[in-house]
Amino acid sequence: MVISNWVNSVIEAGQEIMRGDRKLFAPDHSIADNIALLCEQLLSSKGEALGTALASSLVEICKQLDAQQKIDFLQYLASQFSAPEEQIDNAIAAYQQDPSKQNLYQLHIRTAPPRQELFRRINMAPDGTNTLVSLRADLLPLLKKHPELWEVDNDLRHLINSWFNRGFLKLVKIDWRTPANILEKLIAYEAVHSMNGWDDLRRRLASDRRCYAFFHPAMPDEPLIFVQVALTSGLASSVQDLLNTQVNADMETQADTAIFYSISDCQGGLRGISFGNFLIKQVVMELQGELSNLKEFATLSPIPGFCRWLTSYTEGDELSAEQITLLEPYLNPNQFENLAINPEAKELLTQLCAKYLYQVKRDRQPMDPVARFHLRNGASIGRLNWMGDSSPKGLAQSASMMVNYCYKLDRVAEQHEKFLNEGLVSAEKEFLKIQQETN
Amino acid sequence: MVISNWVNSVIEAGQEIMRGDRKLFAPDHSIADNIALLCEQLLSSKGEALGTALASSLVEICKQLDAQQKIDFLQYLASQFSAPEEQIDNAIAAYQQDPSKQNLYQLHIRTAPPRQELFRRINMAPDGTNTLVSLRADLLPLLKKHPELWEVDNDLRHLINSWFNRGFLKLVKIDWRTPANILEKLIAYEAVHSMNGWDDLRRRLASDRRCYAFFHPAMPDEPLIFVQVALTSGLASSVQDLLNTQVNADMETQADTAIFYSISDCQGGLRGISFGNFLIKQVVMELQGELSNLKEFATLSPIPGFCRWLTSYTEGDELSAEQITLLEPYLNPNQFENLAINPEAKELLTQLCAKYLYQVKRDRQPMDPVARFHLRNGASIGRLNWMGDSSPKGLAQSASMMVNYCYKLDRVAEQHEKFLNEGLVSAEKEFLKIQQETN
Amino acid sequence: MVISNWVNSVIEAGQEIMRGDRKLFAPDHSIADNIALLCEQLLSSKGEALGTALASSLVEICKQLDAQQKIDFLQYLASQFSAPEEQIDNAIAAYQQDPSKQNLYQLHIRTAPPRQELFRRINMAPDGTNTLVSLRADLLPLLKKHPELWEVDNDLRHLINSWFNRGFLKLVKIDWRTPANILEKLIAYEAVHSMNGWDDLRRRLASDRRCYAFFHPAMPDEPLIFVQVALTSGLASSVQDLLNTQVNADMETQADTAIFYSISDCQGGLRGISFGNFLIKQVVMELQGELSNLKEFATLSPIPGFCRWLTSYTEGDELSAEQITLLEPYLNPNQFENLAINPEAKELLTQLCAKYLYQVKRDRQPMDPVARFHLRNGASIGRLNWMGDSSPKGLAQSASMMVNYCYKLDRVAEQHEKFLNEGLVSAEKEFLKIQQETN
Amino acid sequence: MVISNWVNSVIEAGQEIMRGDRKLFAPDHSIADNIALLCEQLLSSKGEALGTALASSLVEICKQLDAQQKIDFLQYLASQFSAPEEQIDNAIAAYQQDPSKQNLYQLHIRTAPPRQELFRRINMAPDGTNTLVSLRADLLPLLKKHPELWEVDNDLRHLINSWFNRGFLKLVKIDWRTPANILEKLIAYEAVHSMNGWDDLRRRLASDRRCYAFFHPAMPDEPLIFVQVALTSGLASSVQDLLNTQVNADMETQADTAIFYSISDCQGGLRGISFGNFLIKQVVMELQGELSNLKEFATLSPIPGFCRWLTSYTEGDELSAEQITLLEPYLNPNQFENLAINPEAKELLTQLCAKYLYQVKRDRQPMDPVARFHLRNGASIGRLNWMGDSSPKGLAQSASMMVNYCYKLDRVAEQHEKFLNEGLVSAEKEFLKIQQETN
Repeated sequence: MVISNWVNSVIEAGQEIMRGDRKLFAPDHSIADNIALLCEQLLSSKGEALGTALASSLVEICKQLDAQQKIDFLQYLASQFSAPEEQIDNAIAAYQQDPSKQNLYQLHIRTAPPRQELFRRINMAPDGTNTLVSLRADLLPLLKKHPELWEVDNDLRHLINSWFNRGFLKLVKIDWRTPANILEKLIAYEAVHSMNGWDDLRRRLASDRRCYAFFHPAMPDEPLIFVQVALTSGLASSVQDLLNTQVNADMETQADTAIFYSISDCQGGLRGISFGNFLIKQVVMELQGELSNLKEFATLSPIPGFCRWLTSYTEGDELSAEQITLLEPYLNPNQFENLAINPEAKELLTQLCAKYLYQVKRDRQPMDPVARFHLRNGASIGRLNWMGDSSPKGLAQSASMMVNYCYKLDRVAEQHEKFLNEGLVSAEKEFLKIQQETN
Repeated sequence: MVISNWVNSVIEAGQEIMRGDRKLFAPDHSIADNIALLCEQLLSSKGEALGTALASSLVEICKQLDAQQKIDFLQYLASQFSAPEEQIDNAIAAYQQDPSKQNLYQLHIRTAPPRQELFRRINMAPDGTNTLVSLRADLLPLLKKHPELWEVDNDLRHLINSWFNRGFLKLVKIDWRTPANILEKLIAYEAVHSMNGWDDLRRRLASDRRCYAFFHPAMPDEPLIFVQVALTSGLASSVQDLLNTQVNADMETQADTAIFYSISDCQGGLRGISFGNFLIKQVVMELQGELSNLKEFATLSPIPGFCRWLTSYTEGDELSAEQITLLEPYLNPNQFENLAINPEAKELLTQLCAKYLYQVKRDRQPMDPVARFHLRNGASIGRLNWMGDSSPKGLAQSASMMVNYCYKLDRVAEQHEKFLNEGLVSAEKEFLKIQQETN
Repeated sequence: MVISNWVNSVIEAGQEIMRGDRKLFAPDHSIADNIALLCEQLLSSKGEALGTALASSLVEICKQLDAQQKIDFLQYLASQFSAPEEQIDNAIAAYQQDPSKQNLYQLHIRTAPPRQELFRRINMAPDGTNTLVSLRADLLPLLKKHPELWEVDNDLRHLINSWFNRGFLKLVKIDWRTPANILEKLIAYEAVHSMNGWDDLRRRLASDRRCYAFFHPAMPDEPLIFVQVALTSGLASSVQDLLNTQVNADMETQADTAIFYSISDCQGGLRGISFGNFLIKQVVMELQGELSNLKEFATLSPIPGFCRWLTSYTEGDELSAEQITLLEPYLNPNQFENLAINPEAKELLTQLCAKYLYQVKRDRQPMDPVARFHLRNGASIGRLNWMGDSSPKGLAQSASMMVNYCYKLDRVAEQHEKFLNEGLVSAEKEFLKIQQETN
Repeated sequence: MVISNWVNSVIEAGQEIMRGDRKLFAPDHSIADNIALLCEQLLSSKGEALGTALASSLVEICKQLDAQQKIDFLQYLASQFSAPEEQIDNAIAAYQQDPSKQNLYQLHIRTAPPRQELFRRINMAPDGTNTLVSLRADLLPLLKKHPELWEVDNDLRHLINSWFNRGFLKLVKIDWRTPANILEKLIAYEAVHSMNGWDDLRRRLASDRRCYAFFHPAMPDEPLIFVQVALTSGLASSVQDLLNTQVNADMETQADTAIFYSISDCQGGLRGISFGNFLIKQVVMELQGELSNLKEFATLSPIPGFCRWLTSYTEGDELSAEQITLLEPYLNPNQFENLAINPEAKELLTQLCAKYLYQVKRDRQPMDPVARFHLRNGASIGRLNWMGDSSPKGLAQSASMMVNYCYKLDRVAEQHEKFLNEGLVSAEKEFLKIQQETN
C-alpha cells in the first residue's frame, strides 16, 4: 500500500513519541502527555484536516503500549472526554422549560461523551476497528479492579455494537482452501474441543464436515465467531466419536443430520455483542440450500454446570442414601473410568440431568449457561447422551453427559417468544418422556 | 443465494401485505397498519428471534411503496418511536438528585429515540443499508414541506454517519475493466461535466486519466462519490480541452500534474456526510505512489457564484461606467461568443473574479461554495483561467472563468487550521499578484 | 508488472529496430534483416538464455508492422525454417533400412519444420499467444493471393489446435457485471444479429437472457466464442420478437425453453478450430443445473442458403407455373413486405424449405452450412418459422424462414453417429410431418 | 459444478467398468478390454460427439487403476496407436517421387502416432492434464524394466512440453495467506532442505523470506516448481543458519542480497521439461521490482557429487600421503563432528572443491549436476562455504561445503553462450583466486 511521506511524517511522530524521542508535539513531556496531545488534536479541527494520519499514529501507538501504559491510557480516556456539566445543566433547564422535541434532541446530544467521537476518529485509520476491539479486549479483564473504566467500556460497546450490525457481517465458508493465516486462528480460538494442530484441523474441514465463520469487512483477517458442523446419519451422541472417526466421504450426499458440535467466539473485545444466534440460523439455511438430504439440525452440547449443581443437590435431602452412594463416584471423576458401564447410575444421572436442564432455574431462566443460550435462540432440548463426552473435562463437568439442542426453523420464533415471555422451556418428545419419569 | 422456506414465509408475509392479501399479521387492517405491525414486531423480542427475516420483509416493502405511501411511512416513523416522556423525566430527576456518571449515562440512554434501534434492525437485512440510505434520499426533499420529519432525518443521519466511518470505506480504482453495472452509474451520477454515454466514459478512463471512487462494503454495487483526474503537463486551464483532447498515452509516464476536474456525489441519502475531503487526499497519495513524476495536484474547478455576485456588484457604485459597460455583455451569456477575445474584459473579469474568491465572504467564509469546500480542506487558490469553461453553463455561471485549487499535502493541515480559526484564505503567489493588482 | 532493466534493454532493441535506429544486432541492415536476426537468435541457444526477453521483443515488433511489412515477415517465415532436405533423406534411408520404431520416430521428428519451435518460443512472451493468433488472422485472408504461406498457416494451426485444447478453455458466464473491456468486444464481434451499442447489449444480458463465452487463460481479455440464449415459454419463432421484447423477469423462474439465438466466433485466427460444438453442449448442462424448469434446448437459426437454392430450383421443372408465380416476389425481397400474409405462399415456402433442409445435399451432407453444423453436432431439425427473421437480411437469405434445431443431450451421440456414418438427418416429428407432406 | 445426467451416465459407465459390472460397452470382457473399447471410442467420431464425457470416463478410470493395471494400460498404449506402416511407406514413396513441401508435410503427418490424438482428447476432460502428467510420473520409473514404453513417454513428453510452454505458466507468490491445500504440497514436495511441518513452513514464509511457484491454469491446485528465497545482508554461508535463524523483520527493507536456497520440482511427470531456468530469472526480476535495495542475487547450493569424486581422486596419485591422511576422516562422515575446526583440512578441502567445480568435467560439462544446471543458466560460481551444510546429508555429500552461484542478469546471456559454445565456466573473482591457488 502506498503511504505518502506526508502521512509517514505524522506516523513517525507517533513512533518518536513511543521511542521517547519526543521531538514532536511536546519535547519535555512524558509518553502519556504526548498521547494526550495526540488525542486532543484528533478531536480538534486538526483531526479533520489530517484525516487518517493522526488516527493512524494513535493506532500505531496503541499496538506498542505495555500493560501498565495501557492501563494509564484507559484511565486517561475514562477521566477525560465526558460531557461538560454546565452544558448538561443548560440542556436540562431548556428541556424542562419547554419539553419540545428539539430540546429533547439537544438534551440527548449534550449528554453524549465526546469520547465516542474520539473513538470514531480512531476508527478512520487502517486497522482502527481492530485496535478498538483489542482495546476493549484489554479493558474487560481490568473492569473488576478498575471499575472507573466502565464508561470507556460503555462507549466502546455502543460503537462496536453499531459497527458490527448483522447487516455488515459476511458469512464465510471455511475449508482446506482457506488461507493459512485464517486457519491458524481457528486452531488458536477453538474453545470447546481444542485442536491438536494442523492435522486435527484438516480432519475437521474434510468433506463430511462444514465450518462457517462471520467476518467484518474492516477486519478481513480476523474471524469473529465460527461454528463447526458434522454431517451424520441420525443425531450424534458422542463428541469423541465425532472427532476421532475416519472421514466418511459418502456423508456429503447421504447425511440426514447436521450436528453443530462447537461454536467459538474469537474476539474478546466483542463480548456481549452476540452473533451466535444469527450464525446458527444462517448456517442452517446455507446447509439446507447446499445439501438437500439434511432433515435435522442439532447441536451436541456440553452441560457445564451439571456436576456443580449435582454436588449441592446431593447435600439436600431429596435423594435416598442409596442414590447418593450410587452417585458419589461420579462426582469424583478420577474413579470414573471403571464405573462407566453401571446401568443404574446411567439411568439415575440421566434423570437428574433432565431435571437440571428442564427445571433448575436462576432468575427465572435455566441455570445452565449453554442451555440458556440455545433455548433463548428458540431451540428445544432434544436427547441426553450418556458418555457423550468422555474426556476428563467432560467427566468433571457433567459426568460425561451431553445434550442435543434442536433447531427447527419453523418453530424457533414461537419457542423464543414463549421462553422469553413465559419462561417456557421447549423440549422434544423423547426428552419430555425421560423428564416426566423423573418426577 | 439460498433463502430457506422459513425466511421466505416471512418475506412473503411482507409481499402479501403489499398485495393487500393481508392474511398475516392483521387481516382487516390497511397497508399502513400492517407496516406498523411489522415495525413493532421488529422492535420487539420477535425481532431478535426472527433475525433478518422481519427486516428483509420491511426492506422488501420499502422498495415497493409509492410516493404517498412513502410519506405516510415517514410520518408514521416521525410520530412514533420517540423516547417516552415519563422515562425522561425520571432520568432527569435522578441525575439532578445525584449527578453521578451512572445517572448521566442513564439520562443519555433514556433520551435516545427507539427509532434508532428500529433502523439498526432494518439494517440487518440484505440490502438494509441501501434501503435506509434511499429512505433518507426520499426524505430530504420532503423536509421543507414536512418539517415534522426532521427527527427521522436526525436519526438516519446519526446512524449513517456512524456506519459510513472513513475506516469502513474502500477506495477503488475505476477503469475500463470495471464491471459495466458500476460504470453505468458513473455515467448517471456525473454531476459536474455530464457524460454522453459510453464512448465519453471510455475516453475518461483512458491511460492519461484516472478515476477513483469510495465504496461501502454493505453497498458493493453503489459508488458513494467519485473523482475524475487528468494527467497533464502543467496546470490545465480549460475543461473543454481536457474533455475533448485525444488520448495521450505518453502522459502516463510523463505527466507532472494531476488535475482533479470533477468530483461527484452519488447518493442523495448521504448528504451532509462528507467524503470529498478524504477522497481527494487519499487519491493524491495513491497517485504519488503510482506515478512518481507527478509534482502538482490541483483541481480545475467551476466558480458557480461568480456571475450572480457580479450582477449585484455592478449595481453598486464601485465600478466606473466604462467598466460596467465593458462587463454588461458578459452577464448576458447569449452574446458572449463574440466577445471572447476582448483583452480588456478578460483583464477586468479576472481581477473581479480574484476579488470574489479571495475577499467576498458570507458568515466569515468565502461566498463561493466550491471555494469554501476546497479551502476548508486545506487547499490554496492557484490560477484563474479565462475561457476555462466555454460551455453555456460555464458562461452563465462564471463568464467562462475557472480556477485551480492546489493540494500540497505538506501544507493542508496548517492551511485548514488557519482557514477555520482565522478565516485566512490561502493562495499561491501567482494568484496573490493578480489579487493585489485588483486593489 | 515489473520488467527489469535487463529485459527492457532487449525489448528496446526491438523498438529501435522498428524506429530504424538499428544500433543493435545489425546497424547497416534493413528492418526485415533485423527481424530475421532476432528470429535466428530466438531459435538459437541465446533464446534459451534470454528466456522471454527475445520473444517479447518479437511480439512487440509484430504489433507495429504495417500491412506490407507483415506480408514480408510471413513470406520470410515461409521461405525459411523448413526441415533441411539432407536430414530428411537420411532419416528416410535409415527407416527404409530398418523400419524400427526408433527410426520411425526420428523420421517424424526430422520432417518437422523448425518454424514450429520458433512459434513455441514466441509464445513464451507475455501476449505471445495473442500475437500468434493475430498473425494467423492476418495470414488467412492472404492465402489466396500468397499460396506459399500455407506452410506457415499449417504450423500455426497445428500449435494453436494443441494449445486451445478444450481442457484449457474456461466457460465464463457473461452478464452486466462483466468488465466493460470484455463487453465491448461482444458488441464488436456479434456476427449474427448485430448490436446497436450498449443499451442493446444490456437488454441481451437481462435476467431473461443468458450469455456464455469460452476464454483461454493466456488471453484473458479476449472471448473466443460466445453464445446468446433467451429464456422463453415454448419455442421462439421470431428473432425480432426475441430482440425487441421487454425484459420479462418472471422467465428466470418460469421459462421451460432455452433458445440459442446467436453463436459468434471472435477470433479470426482460430478459424477451423471448432469450439461451437463444445460450447452449446456445455451451456445446456450449465442451464440445466441453474434453472431446473428448463425442458427444451433449441436454437433459432438462420437458413442462409435457402433463397439461393430456391432461385436455381425454380429454374428447373419441378414446380408448376402457378407455384413459380407465387414464389417469384419472395425471391425479390424489395416487394416482400406486402406479401407477408399470403397463406398459400407461406405453405409452399415452408414445404420447400423443409425439402431444402432435409433432402438437398452436397458431398452427402446438407447443403445449408448452418444445418450442417448443428446436425453434425447431433442436433435434430425442429420447427420451421415463417416470418422468423423479417429483417432485410432475413428476407433476402431465406424469405423470412428460420428453423429451430433441437439439442436433446440423451440423443446427440446417436444422432451424430448416424449423421456421420449413414448421412441420416435427424428431425422432430412436427418437422417430419411437413416434410412428408412435401413429397 | 453442474454435471448433467447425460455426462453422468457416461462417467458411470466408466465406474461400472472398474467395478466389474461391465453392463456397458462389453459385458463379457475384462477391464482391460473395456478400457480399450473406451479408448477406441474416444478416438472415433463418437469421441467428437460425446465431447468431454468419454474423456472424463477415462480420467476417472485412470485414477483407480492399481499398479499392475497401470502397467497393462501403458503397455496397451505402447502396443497400439502407432502410425500404420503402409501409410508411412506410401508417404515416403510420394515424397521420394516429388520432394515437394506438400509431400514433406504429408510425410510428417503420416508418421505421427495416433496416440498423441488420443492423449489430446483425454486432455479435454476436467482434470485431464493432471491425469496425463500423473500417467507420465507412473511411467518414468517403469522405463528401465519396460523399455517398450518409451514411445508412450515420447508422445506424452511432446504434448506436455507444448502445453506447459512458459507463456502459459503463472508465477505466483506464496506466503502465509496462500490456501492451505497449496501450502501442504510445499511441505510434501520440498526436496532440498525438508520441512518439519507447518511451523517450519510458516518460518520460511515470514517477512524476511520469499517463495514463488509456477502454476499451470489447468492444474490450479498443483505447484509445478517452487523456489525459496532468504533476504540477507551479504551472501549467506550456512544453510543451517538460514533455516534456524529468528525472523528479522528489518530485512524486508534492509537486505541487499537475495539467497535462493532451495528449488524443488513438484511433478515427477514433468521431468525433462525444465522451468527452473525461467523461474530463477523471473523471480530475480520480481524481487528487483519489489525490493529496491537488493543488489545481489545468488544461490546457496549443495555440491552433491563432491565427496564421491573426492573418494576416487584420493585413489589416484595426485595427493601426498599427508594430504590423504588429512582428508580421510572427511570421507567418513561419522567422525566428522570432531574435525570440523581443523583449519588445514578446511583449506585443502576448499581448494579441492574449487578444482572439482571448475575443472572436473564429464562430456565437456562440469561433473556436478547442480553446477551444470546453474552454469548452463548463465550463472557464475561465487563463494565456497566451509560448514555451509552441517547436516548428515551435507557432511556425507560434500564434507559440509556449499557454494553460491551468482545470477547477474546483465551477464547471464553472455555466460550461457560461452558455457554452451566454448565450455567456459564463469566464476567470480573471489572464487578464481582460490582456484588459482589450487593449481
